Amino acid sequence: MAVEFWFEFASTYSYPAAMRIEDAARQQGVPLVWKPFLLGPIFKAQGWNDSPFNLQPVKGRYMWRDLARICEELALPLVRPSRFPRNGLLAARVVCAFGDAPWLPEFVRAVFTANFAEDREISDPAVVASCIERAGEKPAPILEAANSAETKERLRRRSEEAERIGLFGAPSFLVGDELFWGNDRLEDALAWHVVRHGPGGT
Amino acid sequence: MAVEFWFEFASTYSYPAAMRIEDAARQQGVPLVWKPFLLGPIFKAQGWNDSPFNLQPVKGRYMWRDLARICEELALPLVRPSRFPRNGLLAARVVCAFGDAPWLPEFVRAVFTANFAEDREISDPAVVASCIERAGEKPAPILEAANSAETKERLRRRSEEAERIGLFGAPSFLVGDELFWGNDRLEDALAWHVVRHGPGGT
Repeated sequence: MAVEFWFEFASTYSYPAAMRIEDAARQQGVPLVWKPFLLGPIFKAQGWNDSPFNLQPVKGRYMWRDLARICEELALPLVRPSRFPRNGLLAARVVCAFGDAPWLPEFVRAVFTANFAEDREISDPAVVASCIERAGEKPAPILEAANSAETKERLRRRSEEAERIGLFGAPSFLVGDELFWGNDRLEDALAWHVVRHGPGGT
Repeated sequence: MAVEFWFEFASTYSYPAAMRIEDAARQQGVPLVWKPFLLGPIFKAQGWNDSPFNLQPVKGRYMWRDLARICEELALPLVRPSRFPRNGLLAARVVCAFGDAPWLPEFVRAVFTANFAEDREISDPAVVASCIERAGEKPAPILEAANSAETKERLRRRSEEAERIGLFGAPSFLVGDELFWGNDRLEDALAWHVVRHGPGGT
């Protein structure tokens, strides 16, 4: 048993969750599985062709203010991206291909930092490459694997899995059959794991 | 300065917030203003003719499970209403007419309990009357004042105010110009007041 961390690189509240989840899970002794997915298909199924934060500007305005408060509390830098939402497809494929690699969490944090603290275009392969470098790896072979037919198919299956377990937003946390949605539910998800399954994944 | 508690009797997450806010505010020494409003006009402006939890069944399913976890944690009874959302217009008018009355918080909790713990039809004047009685008052004169032209106009102005300050959901908490949305932001709102304005409303 583990906590599955379902996140999307374009998602604002996924940013603080991604930056803190590895430490938080380690402190609780809870195993973590990184599950990138795409919100686009899920929003499209709702009839939305954009982020709900753009489609509902009043809610969007609140979200940016709320996110700023959260980041200030966590001492996380935040620069509102000049383009929102950005396309995290390539970065998600990297995670799909290398989900168990020891450098993976560092790569995830580098991509979120590029998008939400540095206002960089994470759909640009050069930016993704620089995030791979920040995680201490050579970009070329990793990008090649990320762009393979096998990885693309894996991410497609991931989206089907997201639909099957009832995801509608990010970040989400899955503990067995129990779903938690939102950065502010991270602690609840970890506690659920510890109480039901014990620390250490037993 | 005070914390304004903006709530809607039909709103699921307003239930736990309403049940605990008076104690929580008192513990922090923060003055509280009860601000009932109607979500219907706000949803209509979005093009929605129903609760988003009904329009998005996947999100709705999650919400009921999340609410059950929250209520269990707070030891609050929860019975999923056989009709959702219910019309809280009359109850909101009672609060509009008697917002400062000492029995008001007890009435608010009685209405939320009727809706979310007893599955009673809060649009029925007899149910609202029973909630007034639970708060220790005689229903007839209170219902008369609630149905007055003046009170109706006051609730209409309240909805305009809700739109002006950028409300898009309930519960919301307003501290000066700072807006907090959701039951899980109650503590943040109270802390914001204490840090910026001190306890006791100074």
